[in-house]
Amino acid sequence: MATIVLCAVNKTAQSTPRRCLLAYSKGLARAGESSTVPSLSLTLLPGTRWFSRGARVRFMSHGTASSTAAGGTRRGALALSGAVAVSAAAAVAGVLINANHFQRAEMATKVSSVAVDEQEGDILERCRDFMSAPVTDIAVLQERKGEMSTRMEMLIMETQADFCKALQEVDGGKFKVDRWQRKEGGGGISCVMQDGKVFEKAGVNVSVVFGYLTEEAAKQMRSRGKVLKGKDGKLPFCAMGVSSVIHPKNPHIPTVHFNYRYFEIEEEDGSKQWWFGGGTDLTPIYINEEDAFHFHNTLKEACDKHSSQYYPDFKKWCDRYFYIRHRGETRGIGGIFFDDLDTPSQEAAFSFVKSCARTVVPCYLPIVYKHLKDSFTEEEKDWQQVRRGRYVEFNLVYDRGVKFGLATPGSRIESILMSLPLTARWEYMHEPAKGTREAEMLEVLQNPKEWV
Amino acid sequence: MATIVLCAVNKTAQSTPRRCLLAYSKGLARAGESSTVPSLSLTLLPGTRWFSRGARVRFMSHGTASSTAAGGTRRGALALSGAVAVSAAAAVAGVLINANHFQRAEMATKVSSVAVDEQEGDILERCRDFMSAPVTDIAVLQERKGEMSTRMEMLIMETQADFCKALQEVDGGKFKVDRWQRKEGGGGISCVMQDGKVFEKAGVNVSVVFGYLTEEAAKQMRSRGKVLKGKDGKLPFCAMGVSSVIHPKNPHIPTVHFNYRYFEIEEEDGSKQWWFGGGTDLTPIYINEEDAFHFHNTLKEACDKHSSQYYPDFKKWCDRYFYIRHRGETRGIGGIFFDDLDTPSQEAAFSFVKSCARTVVPCYLPIVYKHLKDSFTEEEKDWQQVRRGRYVEFNLVYDRGVKFGLATPGSRIESILMSLPLTARWEYMHEPAKGTREAEMLEVLQNPKEWV
Repeated sequence: MATIVLCAVNKTAQSTPRRCLLAYSKGLARAGESSTVPSLSLTLLPGTRWFSRGARVRFMSHGTASSTAAGGTRRGALALSGAVAVSAAAAVAGVLINANHFQRAEMATKVSSVAVDEQEGDILERCRDFMSAPVTDIAVLQERKGEMSTRMEMLIMETQADFCKALQEVDGGKFKVDRWQRKEGGGGISCVMQDGKVFEKAGVNVSVVFGYLTEEAAKQMRSRGKVLKGKDGKLPFCAMGVSSVIHPKNPHIPTVHFNYRYFEIEEEDGSKQWWFGGGTDLTPIYINEEDAFHFHNTLKEACDKHSSQYYPDFKKWCDRYFYIRHRGETRGIGGIFFDDLDTPSQEAAFSFVKSCARTVVPCYLPIVYKHLKDSFTEEEKDWQQVRRGRYVEFNLVYDRGVKFGLATPGSRIESILMSLPLTARWEYMHEPAKGTREAEMLEVLQNPKEWV
Repeated sequence: MATIVLCAVNKTAQSTPRRCLLAYSKGLARAGESSTVPSLSLTLLPGTRWFSRGARVRFMSHGTASSTAAGGTRRGALALSGAVAVSAAAAVAGVLINANHFQRAEMATKVSSVAVDEQEGDILERCRDFMSAPVTDIAVLQERKGEMSTRMEMLIMETQADFCKALQEVDGGKFKVDRWQRKEGGGGISCVMQDGKVFEKAGVNVSVVFGYLTEEAAKQMRSRGKVLKGKDGKLPFCAMGVSSVIHPKNPHIPTVHFNYRYFEIEEEDGSKQWWFGGGTDLTPIYINEEDAFHFHNTLKEACDKHSSQYYPDFKKWCDRYFYIRHRGETRGIGGIFFDDLDTPSQEAAFSFVKSCARTVVPCYLPIVYKHLKDSFTEEEKDWQQVRRGRYVEFNLVYDRGVKFGLATPGSRIESILMSLPLTARWEYMHEPAKGTREAEMLEVLQNPKEWV
């Protein structure tokens, strides 16, 4: 789950690896600063936002539940001058104000479908809207613009910014931004909002780390356990990712988690091994079929653009991974999960990961807005706290990233454990009565369903 | 920590082991019943209690901070008729009503020092005051009265009852008593009080289990990793223990944990390996030097009766064991912890374990009574919740018993996780300000102290 952890295994490295050092050494000049980034105040309507990107403004939909809308889950990056863009969106907002959030988002998306698709744009300009400067120095990123490590670092920084800003907009609170440095090489940017109006605890973490791995550690990092040959048993690696867990206050708004990551390892002969991993999954406290469909369908649309096998395969993998064995139940209603993805090509795999990362906001935000004003009882809040306890159990007992991180000297513990909820509860022998909504939730967790 | 877990490794056993079966098979006749045992209502004064034991009444002190009082930590088992005993204690209570609890308990102890020492008495009579019938059938226990497994089962049942009743007395609430059965052999009795007046969550668990171990599992169970030879690689074993975690509501009353356990394994040649393990440790939210001294000194007195090396050795072991590595801090201020104890003789080791088990009430209850009426702020409650979070981290990430139990099919999860607090909290980057009482606590956890 926590990407940083997967990389911080370099216990014994005394020197920095050849290739990675060059690319990242400048990037830590600003490490150690801690600041609170002001959120954008261009609030329009729930479900749609404007993100200023330098001189341009990009229109984004929070999502669509429709599988018939053209263009998949990320359709809009419309270039307009700031002022015009704001008015256009406001007009859309006026028309849609009474529609439900899913429909509203979908219609807004159609309006903006003249979009320029997925252009990666100028590095300096894109950096302006990040929560913090990237981990790697911007000059280095510009110099190595075409390299996958640069493109992925830009994607994870953008994903962090887009998600944080969407959450700030709905909550009204601000993320605390911490830059941190890893002694053995690399660092990260942790954004945490705690005890907000809507979110009890929201963490969005980026990490970009490098160093040396032992052959044994490298083997453990790949789910297929492929043996890699290092020079004197040591393998230079770099790893980066964005990961997030959001725990809302209202028990009718589900918890969400996502993580997208990229690894590079250099073998003895200088050849590079690389792979992607990631996933997005939802943990509701109460089942809402419409939410579950929207969440899974949005993921499926993102997957289907790349391979029709991705959604079914990665949905199953997700149910398998987020399984709390000692409870005989999954952590939530899943989503997608994949690891060790190095096919069909690096470009295609990156394109898939980009689709997934850009699907986080449209997967989740419409659900948040939909339940924003739902009332709840003390009993519902209690059940949420019991489910939070299970979340803690999964994360501390089973999550590979957390386990690896806690066992690794030099890990940034606060970034690893930022996934834990602010509050949780363990009631002895808690068993929901038959026929209750709590029992209905448990039934789904014990028998994962197909939602699409 | 949770004793049951240490024994439930018998994944593949299809049959029951030769010796243990005979002793325990009858004991499960009543397994599955669940009842609430009424507490005794002979409340006298805080710090002293009367326990009715059949026709006799035993006077018990809750503890003494004095190292000069003769006779160690368990001095009194005074045979009196019920009525006389009650009046005698009431008189003592009247005299002592204004003294502090530690002094009061000590003086009360002196009054009762005419006691008959440590007699094990009649099985049927002793069973009357347990929270439930023992796991093993009483007829079997009577038949095998002299065997260590019987004597230990009686001790853990007695420890459970004494501790539960002492807690019920101070809280006013009742323990929920669950009898449970282990499919592979044996069972247990879990007593849990939740959301009481004084205690947020109090669990006291007894388990007596048997079956077969693989040689590998047997090796893992002994801290010295001794290799044991089984018939066809399988070793009949039986294991039993009492374990408890008490989380009070008031942040000025510390959490306590104890666990005392006994193992028997039969090797290929029919020879029996046996050993004891256990410990008692305290987790305060705020440091109170007097409490820390009382707790450690009471343990030291119990240890010193058996060997002058026990307290210093087992105190160090405790600090080492309850270490949250990723936080660089201990879980609490320790106490004693030992494992794999099979010297100097079975009789002497049992006598030591008996002293330890009978020291639980005098170690802890005086501290509870002392702080019963302490007022506290919201900030102090928050700090308690943060410390509870660390308690959960230790128990789920490091505790050998919990890890083993969760990984073992057929374990009773609710009994293993009954050690988790009712509520806990994880604040991102929580750091107490310098000079605060919270920082003082952390300092002690980062640098374990000598208290005696």
